[in-house]
Amino acid sequence: MKPVCLVIGAGAGIGGNVGQRFAAAGYHACLCRRSDEEGLKRLVDGIEGEGGSASGFLLNAVAENAIEERVAAIEADIGPIEVAVYNLGAQIGDRALRDTSHRAFEMGWRLGTFGLFRLASAVCPLMTERGMGTLLVTSATAAVRGNKGQHSHAAAMGGRRLLCQSLNAEFGPKGIHVAHVLIDGAVDAPDTLGKLLGPQRFQQLRESRGMAHDGLMLPAKIAETYYHLAQQHRSTWTFEIDLRSFTDRPWWNH
Amino acid sequence: MKPVCLVIGAGAGIGGNVGQRFAAAGYHACLCRRSDEEGLKRLVDGIEGEGGSASGFLLNAVAENAIEERVAAIEADIGPIEVAVYNLGAQIGDRALRDTSHRAFEMGWRLGTFGLFRLASAVCPLMTERGMGTLLVTSATAAVRGNKGQHSHAAAMGGRRLLCQSLNAEFGPKGIHVAHVLIDGAVDAPDTLGKLLGPQRFQQLRESRGMAHDGLMLPAKIAETYYHLAQQHRSTWTFEIDLRSFTDRPWWNH
Amino acid sequence: MKPVCLVIGAGAGIGGNVGQRFAAAGYHACLCRRSDEEGLKRLVDGIEGEGGSASGFLLNAVAENAIEERVAAIEADIGPIEVAVYNLGAQIGDRALRDTSHRAFEMGWRLGTFGLFRLASAVCPLMTERGMGTLLVTSATAAVRGNKGQHSHAAAMGGRRLLCQSLNAEFGPKGIHVAHVLIDGAVDAPDTLGKLLGPQRFQQLRESRGMAHDGLMLPAKIAETYYHLAQQHRSTWTFEIDLRSFTDRPWWNH
Amino acid sequence: MKPVCLVIGAGAGIGGNVGQRFAAAGYHACLCRRSDEEGLKRLVDGIEGEGGSASGFLLNAVAENAIEERVAAIEADIGPIEVAVYNLGAQIGDRALRDTSHRAFEMGWRLGTFGLFRLASAVCPLMTERGMGTLLVTSATAAVRGNKGQHSHAAAMGGRRLLCQSLNAEFGPKGIHVAHVLIDGAVDAPDTLGKLLGPQRFQQLRESRGMAHDGLMLPAKIAETYYHLAQQHRSTWTFEIDLRSFTDRPWWNH
Repeated sequence: MKPVCLVIGAGAGIGGNVGQRFAAAGYHACLCRRSDEEGLKRLVDGIEGEGGSASGFLLNAVAENAIEERVAAIEADIGPIEVAVYNLGAQIGDRALRDTSHRAFEMGWRLGTFGLFRLASAVCPLMTERGMGTLLVTSATAAVRGNKGQHSHAAAMGGRRLLCQSLNAEFGPKGIHVAHVLIDGAVDAPDTLGKLLGPQRFQQLRESRGMAHDGLMLPAKIAETYYHLAQQHRSTWTFEIDLRSFTDRPWWNH
Repeated sequence: MKPVCLVIGAGAGIGGNVGQRFAAAGYHACLCRRSDEEGLKRLVDGIEGEGGSASGFLLNAVAENAIEERVAAIEADIGPIEVAVYNLGAQIGDRALRDTSHRAFEMGWRLGTFGLFRLASAVCPLMTERGMGTLLVTSATAAVRGNKGQHSHAAAMGGRRLLCQSLNAEFGPKGIHVAHVLIDGAVDAPDTLGKLLGPQRFQQLRESRGMAHDGLMLPAKIAETYYHLAQQHRSTWTFEIDLRSFTDRPWWNH
Repeated sequence: MKPVCLVIGAGAGIGGNVGQRFAAAGYHACLCRRSDEEGLKRLVDGIEGEGGSASGFLLNAVAENAIEERVAAIEADIGPIEVAVYNLGAQIGDRALRDTSHRAFEMGWRLGTFGLFRLASAVCPLMTERGMGTLLVTSATAAVRGNKGQHSHAAAMGGRRLLCQSLNAEFGPKGIHVAHVLIDGAVDAPDTLGKLLGPQRFQQLRESRGMAHDGLMLPAKIAETYYHLAQQHRSTWTFEIDLRSFTDRPWWNH
Repeated sequence: MKPVCLVIGAGAGIGGNVGQRFAAAGYHACLCRRSDEEGLKRLVDGIEGEGGSASGFLLNAVAENAIEERVAAIEADIGPIEVAVYNLGAQIGDRALRDTSHRAFEMGWRLGTFGLFRLASAVCPLMTERGMGTLLVTSATAAVRGNKGQHSHAAAMGGRRLLCQSLNAEFGPKGIHVAHVLIDGAVDAPDTLGKLLGPQRFQQLRESRGMAHDGLMLPAKIAETYYHLAQQHRSTWTFEIDLRSFTDRPWWNH
């Protein structure tokens, strides 16, 4: 039986590519996303076309019990989740405080912080019993600095980062590798950046900064680092790592 | 008319002492706390006994519209809020992940992060119109490190800190001073530490580490620094400051 | 006998104003600077004209034994140093790596890091014997981020900040208050910024960003915070504090 | 012609293992260490015995021109340095301030900060001409917190970290990958930890915490992460990564 790699938030960007990378290495990839059943099918078919194995699930992560039931079903029907990847974003673009509704702020927290808490609550006990497991958490610049207009996103990601630390403090010594992966730049991802910008501006950005310029982060390359993290020997685990294009200024530089 | 200093979370610790300090300097202190009407009255009477001016309000900060209505009523009935102090804690003691209910995690966020967002949403537009104002936010070690058992608290405080940064990014240039005050140690406060430990253990701690040892942070002394922050000239504002007893190890030292 | 406040690096900016502020509060200010005897005299005269007490010393901080002998002489001739302020900068402007000579890099370290080590080595044993004392260290943005062209400065200030932490770890519990003051913006100081820019550009900057705009940090206002830090009760000491104009972006924001 | 991986500080711990790892992947490893010609020969022989290619050089990194001349000679005689690893430590154990001589403090800087500046000054222009290159810098907990007794080490490593940031700011956009690798735990390395503890205590520690416990970081496993960093695509470079055993508390946890 193949070990399972569960990805919450598997679009055509980091999530889908991480699934592919683990599938290529012999994992069964369980890909979850909220919508776009067709895109999901394409991902699964792509993995199977390469000789890998995968399942796709539509999942509304903020719905009650959705994460919990999906975890339980995968463990019952497919196999033990060895690697869980929390890859849901909570970016809603820059909004002034007065344009940030209570609802938007709460939704940031539900996707950005609470969903990870729920995933961890569901998988960590199982991993603890098995004495091993990996929880890889995609994070963002907003986890380490709160910029103008980022009230909802920064609060959500700041909470996510500190939650990762407390999860690591409890579960690291039990053999569960928690890693907080700081994506500090724009990702060449049609399902997130592409939707934020619209197809035309996205294509322009790809031509001016991406492609041969390597100024947009290639999700397939990011996936290599996720895979490396999951393979680290437990005497040398990484908790936090940042990633950005060589053309980008790190978050701390002006 | 005296300028108003509003304190959300005004017990016998930091909140009450900050109210007292600003009242002594000529502010009208508006003290809000969830319960203990008698304690609240004692605080107000104490301030008035010293020749200061204060009002006390029972306030359940997580109740819908409670913060918003309190702010509106103070502005209508008492005067413009020049200084707002968000001093609600969200510490529930150390709890393993499996003992941290969804409800407890959410309550951490409501008190730790969302309440500040709501207070800021209520007062920042008013302060912006006046071109000035101060928002002082009490914070905790858990805002910068997630320790074992601190899932709810660390996520809440990590969110609080990053929210303060995004508030500062938007409102600093509009003349509103946002400061994140990192309380990195135990405070000699009967209403918080005292209740967490129980009266006997609290008294023992006061005798062994507090009192002449100065190993527990004196809230009246902390209040001096809050007052100093509110008096800083706008060409030299502090966003972040840490405070601890000289006997305590800072959070980064082992 | 007045307590002594020693300032290493006392020009017409932060250093001189800190000396003035402490002198106004009853300290004897010992002002040290490398050159400009006339400027030094003006500072001392200014303090004395206000009814304060001060002495001025020319001091080449990188010369062997210069700091050590000055400390010894002050303790012998004037009185116990209660507050020591290390205010030497090491900014040499932006320089590409190939334009940063070994000599410039080393000079950065001598002024930025080693001089503080030497001052601490000279005063901390004296303060330890007396069970009290304060060491206030002016620091810069470069202590927390290394920007392009800042090789010498960032290495020097990064070293300074971590040295402050280890000094605090050893001497805090002995009653010596060490504080690292992060000056995260341009200071309205003719002796540093003024010399870096030249008189004409400095005056232009003062008119466009400083003066009524309050976009340049006023050193007399910064001095208020230094003084506050030195007055903090030992149960509530600050180790790190940042300061900037309300118009300036904090170092972490883009 | 094989690309060259230069390691400054190649003992039987991280440095030697990194050399081996890159040699196994087809690099020519140039291993430099201060002393122990025999140990150096063993390393080179070991690599060659595995079919790899390597050269060993005795190098006193603090001697004038030693680094510069070694770099020039390798470029002339062996080939272009594609990867440079700065792996010199500056840990001298815990020492009170009064036991930290000026000489010890300066030596910390020479090994910890200045040597890296010199290596970068020597290799970055060559890499810039070639439009590519990698500079991997081993760092330590002391780069992010200054503990008691760590005056020399913390100042040196704090400077090292910020220097890495300024190097990255200048050379990242030129295609040179700078990475700061935070080794946040004890490494199972006879040449460093072994010498610090002495053979008997080192063996006891290996038995109680290392070996089957995986509580000491295995340098061969650390080397895997160094190699991964050097292989990252330039659209997804890491600047900072931490590593520790799963049994160890991260530096920020108490």
